[in-house]
Amino acid sequence: MMRNINVEHLIQTPIEKQKIEIVERKGIGHPDSISDGLSEAVSRALCKEYIKKCGVVLHHNTDETQIVAGRSSPKFGGGEVIQPIYALLVGRATKEFEGVEIPAEAVALSAAREYIRRNIVDLDLERDMIIDCKMGTGSSDLRDVFNRARVPVANDTSFGIGHAPFSELEQIVYETERKLITDLKKKIPGIGTDIKVMGLRDDNDITLTICCGMVGRHIDDMDHYINLKEEMMDYVTDLAMKRTDRNVSAFLNTGDNEKCGSVFLTVTGTSAEMGDDGSVGRGNRCNGLITPGRPMSMEATSGKNPINHIGKIYNPLSTQMARDIVKAVPEVQDVYIRLLSQIGKPIDQPLVASAQIIPEDGANFASVRAETEAVMDEWLSNITRITDMVSKGELDTF
Amino acid sequence: MMRNINVEHLIQTPIEKQKIEIVERKGIGHPDSISDGLSEAVSRALCKEYIKKCGVVLHHNTDETQIVAGRSSPKFGGGEVIQPIYALLVGRATKEFEGVEIPAEAVALSAAREYIRRNIVDLDLERDMIIDCKMGTGSSDLRDVFNRARVPVANDTSFGIGHAPFSELEQIVYETERKLITDLKKKIPGIGTDIKVMGLRDDNDITLTICCGMVGRHIDDMDHYINLKEEMMDYVTDLAMKRTDRNVSAFLNTGDNEKCGSVFLTVTGTSAEMGDDGSVGRGNRCNGLITPGRPMSMEATSGKNPINHIGKIYNPLSTQMARDIVKAVPEVQDVYIRLLSQIGKPIDQPLVASAQIIPEDGANFASVRAETEAVMDEWLSNITRITDMVSKGELDTF
Amino acid sequence: MMRNINVEHLIQTPIEKQKIEIVERKGIGHPDSISDGLSEAVSRALCKEYIKKCGVVLHHNTDETQIVAGRSSPKFGGGEVIQPIYALLVGRATKEFEGVEIPAEAVALSAAREYIRRNIVDLDLERDMIIDCKMGTGSSDLRDVFNRARVPVANDTSFGIGHAPFSELEQIVYETERKLITDLKKKIPGIGTDIKVMGLRDDNDITLTICCGMVGRHIDDMDHYINLKEEMMDYVTDLAMKRTDRNVSAFLNTGDNEKCGSVFLTVTGTSAEMGDDGSVGRGNRCNGLITPGRPMSMEATSGKNPINHIGKIYNPLSTQMARDIVKAVPEVQDVYIRLLSQIGKPIDQPLVASAQIIPEDGANFASVRAETEAVMDEWLSNITRITDMVSKGELDTF
Amino acid sequence: MMRNINVEHLIQTPIEKQKIEIVERKGIGHPDSISDGLSEAVSRALCKEYIKKCGVVLHHNTDETQIVAGRSSPKFGGGEVIQPIYALLVGRATKEFEGVEIPAEAVALSAAREYIRRNIVDLDLERDMIIDCKMGTGSSDLRDVFNRARVPVANDTSFGIGHAPFSELEQIVYETERKLITDLKKKIPGIGTDIKVMGLRDDNDITLTICCGMVGRHIDDMDHYINLKEEMMDYVTDLAMKRTDRNVSAFLNTGDNEKCGSVFLTVTGTSAEMGDDGSVGRGNRCNGLITPGRPMSMEATSGKNPINHIGKIYNPLSTQMARDIVKAVPEVQDVYIRLLSQIGKPIDQPLVASAQIIPEDGANFASVRAETEAVMDEWLSNITRITDMVSKGELDTF
Repeated sequence: MMRNINVEHLIQTPIEKQKIEIVERKGIGHPDSISDGLSEAVSRALCKEYIKKCGVVLHHNTDETQIVAGRSSPKFGGGEVIQPIYALLVGRATKEFEGVEIPAEAVALSAAREYIRRNIVDLDLERDMIIDCKMGTGSSDLRDVFNRARVPVANDTSFGIGHAPFSELEQIVYETERKLITDLKKKIPGIGTDIKVMGLRDDNDITLTICCGMVGRHIDDMDHYINLKEEMMDYVTDLAMKRTDRNVSAFLNTGDNEKCGSVFLTVTGTSAEMGDDGSVGRGNRCNGLITPGRPMSMEATSGKNPINHIGKIYNPLSTQMARDIVKAVPEVQDVYIRLLSQIGKPIDQPLVASAQIIPEDGANFASVRAETEAVMDEWLSNITRITDMVSKGELDTF
Repeated sequence: MMRNINVEHLIQTPIEKQKIEIVERKGIGHPDSISDGLSEAVSRALCKEYIKKCGVVLHHNTDETQIVAGRSSPKFGGGEVIQPIYALLVGRATKEFEGVEIPAEAVALSAAREYIRRNIVDLDLERDMIIDCKMGTGSSDLRDVFNRARVPVANDTSFGIGHAPFSELEQIVYETERKLITDLKKKIPGIGTDIKVMGLRDDNDITLTICCGMVGRHIDDMDHYINLKEEMMDYVTDLAMKRTDRNVSAFLNTGDNEKCGSVFLTVTGTSAEMGDDGSVGRGNRCNGLITPGRPMSMEATSGKNPINHIGKIYNPLSTQMARDIVKAVPEVQDVYIRLLSQIGKPIDQPLVASAQIIPEDGANFASVRAETEAVMDEWLSNITRITDMVSKGELDTF
Repeated sequence: MMRNINVEHLIQTPIEKQKIEIVERKGIGHPDSISDGLSEAVSRALCKEYIKKCGVVLHHNTDETQIVAGRSSPKFGGGEVIQPIYALLVGRATKEFEGVEIPAEAVALSAAREYIRRNIVDLDLERDMIIDCKMGTGSSDLRDVFNRARVPVANDTSFGIGHAPFSELEQIVYETERKLITDLKKKIPGIGTDIKVMGLRDDNDITLTICCGMVGRHIDDMDHYINLKEEMMDYVTDLAMKRTDRNVSAFLNTGDNEKCGSVFLTVTGTSAEMGDDGSVGRGNRCNGLITPGRPMSMEATSGKNPINHIGKIYNPLSTQMARDIVKAVPEVQDVYIRLLSQIGKPIDQPLVASAQIIPEDGANFASVRAETEAVMDEWLSNITRITDMVSKGELDTF
Repeated sequence: MMRNINVEHLIQTPIEKQKIEIVERKGIGHPDSISDGLSEAVSRALCKEYIKKCGVVLHHNTDETQIVAGRSSPKFGGGEVIQPIYALLVGRATKEFEGVEIPAEAVALSAAREYIRRNIVDLDLERDMIIDCKMGTGSSDLRDVFNRARVPVANDTSFGIGHAPFSELEQIVYETERKLITDLKKKIPGIGTDIKVMGLRDDNDITLTICCGMVGRHIDDMDHYINLKEEMMDYVTDLAMKRTDRNVSAFLNTGDNEKCGSVFLTVTGTSAEMGDDGSVGRGNRCNGLITPGRPMSMEATSGKNPINHIGKIYNPLSTQMARDIVKAVPEVQDVYIRLLSQIGKPIDQPLVASAQIIPEDGANFASVRAETEAVMDEWLSNITRITDMVSKGELDTF
């Protein structure tokens, strides 16, 4: 059956040439990202357990972790959490399949604790956080769906969205948070995992406004704190200037009032310890960014099952398609992918698969269209590859 | 002080002329909307209580209600909920102010129950739903903020987004859900409040795919159900055709398999009774729609305090600005507003206030710019009007 | 099969002749009693539902309601709850039986709310209390047990205990709480339901120390409060003096410091609103009293299933036996019954059924023994009568 | 001020000479005991934290831990928990004192997890159990109480009860559980911590009915299981025969049906993993036993503060008094202590301190009375010693 693929020439000022661009990334220790990370960790662990016990991934949907903030009393050289952070893992999972019991809640709990231990490294799981779990079973219809041998059918009428390539600002914002954690934190343990990077490009001036919850016990005093901030800002600016010729300025914890001794200090490296609640799907899209100048999907990607859940499959798929199109079709300046499912139809047959393309000046759009369609059709023919990649943790979801 | 207002001429195919357009609305009984509605109802009740007890709105942020789905056994002519829906109200609120105690949790509980009773009308609060509450106090800095007499300062570095006017499809999708509940449900009580409308425009063909959880006890049998569906589809198509000359086709509950007796029946009118969890901020934006072809903010609007919370103020403000610009400046075809705050700065002085305008052909952009700037400046000068409108419930948040 | 009934002549100073006697009763609004009441209400509602749907009572055990106290701000003429009381209904119930689904949680929630509404009459369920529910399914062995047609087998190795007759002090303590609620509260609505009566008899002097959470909105001011206390103490003393020739003195709310304005005032009539948590089985035994001078069972009676749960059946059975023995055998001064089950054995065949009797002076113990055995054997032969009485709510459990 | 000490000659068949005696002990892994243990561990940790931060123990009361059973799938050589056990720590604690914040919830969580790790050794805290916490602040009156320098005043009108010496059966029942865990478990790791010992003495025949949740992963198969049971019964019988000349027979897991493969196997060593909920104060009294033939208090001892909470102080105090009286006054055969407080009065001045004594035949009761009074008066004069002993963990509470 022919797929309803639609490639459209989009007349639009490319993002790089618009005057104002805003891009945001919430780091892994941001309360919303913790929710995303927990939801996805639980889903991956369930996938693994299902395959181990039943040979196939069974229906589940664990995309609703709620973080309720704690209370803390941070200090230079110490500090302590007063009231633990509370996380409620919410979702549905198949708990019994052909006589085999699947310990969904126990697996979820264990995966969630493991995730926090590995990623929110400054938090003491024994006293700083409570992880609770309310995991129902799904509706029977949904539970049936994976028994069938064919391409799964869509669980919902929903859509996924992706674009490529990243703009300069998008690259910089993404990389800023990543490198602070994966590189600079090794040298400066006082960097917390709760980093929010807000990037603004006003013509050729890029401003990075960074919020980072610093970890008190690794910082001696205010002088030390101030020095670390300077070191971090230098690091971030240097990093950005490798990616752009525009002017870059970086600001860190602009809410600080150092004279009053009021700075963004934490015990655990995340503001979830003090007043900031968190939810799944309210932070980064599956490409790692929030990009209000680009089309976006509201669907949470983290925690959904990678078999038939459109919110899980079509978002990373759109992004992968867009990235492959940009690689395969040089005349494409910007591409936006939208995939719309219809409940009950096979997921490789979207109601519409739309690509909007801003081509290079003078490009031959007919050949651009043909090459783009080919990439899209290829991906849809091999759609279960996304399922595999997601199950194996090869694709980020936030 | 001059405001950093930036009006840009946007070169772009207007949405009405793009080939593919997708618009979605989740109705008030959708689990995500229930979360939004509860969060906003709690915030409004707190505003009222604060004004009654202290004369001013105090800091709060109740934007994280989590709905955990129940289990049900629906039937024609009856049915019952097996396991109640669980709602956890999460947030922060000031509980004590200058010696006055504010019963934040009791107010929240009471407002939430009242909201459900009025809006999710087919649900029996005595046995179908548990409403729980975990409401912390905020951080001390945030609590201080409202003591000052001046324009409040932004609580965060964040942004709000709005656009105008609605496209045909946007109008139709919005109105479809609204009229089914406010008008047709009076005649057909079997219409549940959980209605999801997915609108697709492919050139001049509009397809409305509607999902509606029908209420079993108001429907006698399968024949009755099928008749009601037809009546609803006719109603929806007629309604749409008043708004457009394009071709309209409507589909309702396409997942139904009427021969097998498997249709979208509920006890309470919402799928939260059976497997669908819900969260705040994952459904409609504050204009009532999800519009992946338009810039959108990820910030939840519902439940945030309307005094200094950018997520609450800048989203409806952007939308109001855009609507007023369209009214005041006839040469504007499409306008997109983005407002970016900086933490600690007065909310009437955004870091950048950007308007992107697609003018009518032949418009004088200099005068368009001037008139647009005037509308934006006027709104920013009177920014606390948004606070009033929100507190009084004059603006929807989802 | 002969039953192992053992009647023993107990050499002991009868309680009425001991120098010191202590008796306590916690009224229906005491947090422990609220827990008991909720647990029992849930069990009764489940019994009814099981009979309606399946024709028989199925396995359940809902004897673990936990009350977490709220916070309140009581005032004469008003007051309000600040933080709602939280009740967690805990237990096991059969949720599916031969293809029939039983809405155990929904039934529990509804029964619990109904119970509070009827009994804790000064509490506003819409804002003063959250009722939550965690109800598991039992172990499969236990679920099997009721399929069999014979006399049920004991679920546990456990015992029940009862005595008769009530001493003067026991009668007085019991009646004091009962009459304050069922009679005097009609005239004085300011009497709260949380009444604790501690009775001490020191030889011929009876002291009743009563704690009663008064309801602020029904009391105008301190004078009114003081007048009501006097009226209540007079009422209680008059009541007691109808039962005894001993000296009676009554004290009410001895912790009050009326000059400082610190008195036992509440909003809802129960101290659960302010700091007093509650659990099942920590208050009154199934005869309505705590009697440290008498043998007692630690087993909670409320909430257990009345089919095979020894904690539910043997406690009221022992009490009924004791009361019937006293009626049937006049020479019995005091009788103590202990019934010990063995897991897996029919409940009408206890491992030992022991009666300890203090006979009247000069009684013929051989005939006392024979008559006592007859009463006991009769009750054991008709043991399911207890199940019926409990299911129908004819026997109190606390 | 003279204390109201009352020593009474009790005419009563001593327990050792009554025909029927029943004694029970719930081991440390019984769900009710886990609740007790958690509550007490939390209280001890709070005492330590208060002393560290404020120099004195502050008001708290953490005596309401609720265990909600999980679900499990035990197997020889393995098995796994399906749904984690849920524990809710409930109580009140002072969270702020003269400007110092006390991290009550974090301390509670950490102490609870530590307790489980050390005592319920076969349970994997990372996946088998969720520990949650709802800890309020107390009422202001109660919080004031410890500011005063004098002997604390009673928080309630309540009583404590104790007796000595242990009967043979009491010694045997207590020791059976203790030795199985502290001694035999070293050799047989398959012994779970959830051991319930029910002792019945019928004249000179002692029957020990023991329930022990065996740990599947330490047991190879049914033969191994049967061998272990025999080894355990031999061990228990030998142990008992060192304490008594009566006939002893021991039964273990009498509900087992080994032919059907249905035996009492667990994953974690406690039946809380599968259907058995648990509460504080429903198991052993503070002497480690349930003794329905002796006077008992219903008050939970575990988790209460050891400063002014009668339920915490008067129960171990009564037991210590009784034990010292038996040592100091050889003519005492059996002694029962009852201490009754009056709210607001100093705890060293009980409303009545009653000793009931069954003396040896021919004892001089006048001198018995005098010596007994001396022991009681001495203890009351040094009542805060109990507080110290409890805070330091020198006295068991269950």
